[in-house]
Amino acid sequence: MDTRTGLPVVGMVGGGQLARMTHQAAIALGQSLRVLAQSPDDGAALVAADVQYGDHTDLAALRTFAKSCDVVTFDHEHVPTEHIRLLAAEGVKLFPPADALLHAQDKRIMRERLGALGAPNPVWQPVTEPADLVAFGTEQGWPVVLKAARGGYDGRGVWLVDDAAQATELAGTLLAGGTRLIVEERVRLRRELAVQVARSPFGQVAAYPVVETVQVDGVCVEVLAPAPGLAEEVAVAAQQLAIDLATALGVVGLLAVELFETPTGLVVNELAMRPHNSGHWTIEGARTSQFEQHLRAVLDYPMGDTALTAPVVVMANVLGGEPGGISVDERLHHLFAAEPGAKVHLYGKQVRPGRKIGHVTVLGDELDDVRARAARAARWLREGTSE
Amino acid sequence: MDTRTGLPVVGMVGGGQLARMTHQAAIALGQSLRVLAQSPDDGAALVAADVQYGDHTDLAALRTFAKSCDVVTFDHEHVPTEHIRLLAAEGVKLFPPADALLHAQDKRIMRERLGALGAPNPVWQPVTEPADLVAFGTEQGWPVVLKAARGGYDGRGVWLVDDAAQATELAGTLLAGGTRLIVEERVRLRRELAVQVARSPFGQVAAYPVVETVQVDGVCVEVLAPAPGLAEEVAVAAQQLAIDLATALGVVGLLAVELFETPTGLVVNELAMRPHNSGHWTIEGARTSQFEQHLRAVLDYPMGDTALTAPVVVMANVLGGEPGGISVDERLHHLFAAEPGAKVHLYGKQVRPGRKIGHVTVLGDELDDVRARAARAARWLREGTSE
Repeated sequence: MDTRTGLPVVGMVGGGQLARMTHQAAIALGQSLRVLAQSPDDGAALVAADVQYGDHTDLAALRTFAKSCDVVTFDHEHVPTEHIRLLAAEGVKLFPPADALLHAQDKRIMRERLGALGAPNPVWQPVTEPADLVAFGTEQGWPVVLKAARGGYDGRGVWLVDDAAQATELAGTLLAGGTRLIVEERVRLRRELAVQVARSPFGQVAAYPVVETVQVDGVCVEVLAPAPGLAEEVAVAAQQLAIDLATALGVVGLLAVELFETPTGLVVNELAMRPHNSGHWTIEGARTSQFEQHLRAVLDYPMGDTALTAPVVVMANVLGGEPGGISVDERLHHLFAAEPGAKVHLYGKQVRPGRKIGHVTVLGDELDDVRARAARAARWLREGTSE
Repeated sequence: MDTRTGLPVVGMVGGGQLARMTHQAAIALGQSLRVLAQSPDDGAALVAADVQYGDHTDLAALRTFAKSCDVVTFDHEHVPTEHIRLLAAEGVKLFPPADALLHAQDKRIMRERLGALGAPNPVWQPVTEPADLVAFGTEQGWPVVLKAARGGYDGRGVWLVDDAAQATELAGTLLAGGTRLIVEERVRLRRELAVQVARSPFGQVAAYPVVETVQVDGVCVEVLAPAPGLAEEVAVAAQQLAIDLATALGVVGLLAVELFETPTGLVVNELAMRPHNSGHWTIEGARTSQFEQHLRAVLDYPMGDTALTAPVVVMANVLGGEPGGISVDERLHHLFAAEPGAKVHLYGKQVRPGRKIGHVTVLGDELDDVRARAARAARWLREGTSE
């Protein structure tokens, strides 16, 4: 407990933009997020008062940090499961618990568990030797999607495999390097959807409206809330699926369920157990942001209202452009002059081409208009020019 | 400039809740507010990464702080005017400038200037000897309102004087103590209103909707946005008055104009040149919060959209209750269970009876309902019980 405020101390392992925005939400709740960062240049370390330094794979650093907090949560999925189990056994409250988080860390374990729960998986199979991949591709038809069970995100750790020759070579190389693999059918999707829910230790689950996520080269560039033209029964089914998964897996905190919408129904793509890029729109677009909701969940407070604040909300990621050109400061001037209502979130990151350095949210009444304005704002911040 | 982010550094003198909430808004803009606090227990020092310590009346501390910032602004009005002038002469950008801020620091200077500008003052007069006060009361009718020209807020530095005997004694004591005084007629008001505007160095002014502020014993307890039942032409006149004052006085940053609504029109009560309690509702209730707007103004960014996000927004202050009873943490549980949509802001302050320790904002469609919910939420956080 923080003796000055009388409130429990929440610690977050990892100092990236999610910790940065969680700290921002924590301030309203009378809190100051305690952050375990790697470097003073981390996005959260630049803005939080209460920062410790250490690596998230270093058990000693994790232990020192965790024991100073009333509850510990995560900015990413890269903390080793065995460390989380060990600290939990030593009496630390860590949310989500290791047994839940595993399903966001390991795609093979996730697929097996979803299958056991009757949740909609694509056709998939573990790959323990190259012949497994060749057989799967021959049966399902090429191309197929090869995935590293652990460690990938934003398109990394995912390979589209076109034929048996490529399959043999790629799987051989990866397996020899110790990478655990699964293969999935290439789902014929109409589009990608996502649902955020938050679950408290008490067991209350709150669901946000279903959104559409737009990906380019495996990177999310845009989120449309609510998902345009989604049939009410599909939206309710998606929320119910996320609520059921959060409950069955014992999630505490946020769960983002990434979904494919296909001609024959919904298929689960990925799970994330933390505030997620597909929920950044909630900062201004929902009555309770996903960051506040995550804090409320890990603190076992009752969940906040998830209602939309406008008929249409669009979030566009700001990706780093080529170095040079006009400064971010000058870009903000131009953007704010053109779009007084654009809500900008910059993460304090060094610009690298393609890196997510921030996002912009625009609210309004008409999808095409709001979407065009959000896309223009994000492009403007990236490049300093607009078409 | 912050070499890590490429953005200018904004410094705020004073580490109270206004700096705390300004830091929260700064995070989204890629900034981290640099704060000059007095103590590590200050509300902003508890949450900001970049805190220096020193007294706001200590010129050396102010100079060191100011020279580390690209632009300096204020959490309160208590920085000595001569220090601001001196630092400005040394090349520091301080907003609002000393010549503007003076009108929020000194009520006599404010009244004189408002009079010269033709803005609506109450009947008033400087009091340089007790006889001035007696003569004013005799002419205008008792009671009259005696005010210290400098230093008062939240009902302090203001005395209701009932008769000549009290006038002679009180004015004699205060004048002997070196307090500069003015006297004002006791305005027969219908209610109090307030308008926030923000002005940039470029000269752009953005106005928020006019709100009603409800005071008890000189302390604001509630703000209703927009002001219920206010005639459109009065609202426009109030906004125009605030825009004209911001421009005429050369304000940079926020200006809050507190007004009396009387049977014969509007009268200016007070001016504040910073984010103000009467604008806390903007955090969720307007597309751009007053804290972001203040930052945009001092950074000379174009102003943000000031539109309401709901038909009715009510902010209720949380005042400290008697010590003891259930903890703030437990109170939050009960409040969030009853009001999932209540937006809570706690300032990290030690609880003292009557002290503002936070505020709650509720949004909705129907005034009576929203107002009752906000008042209940604030009372609940104060006392841990609800009627």
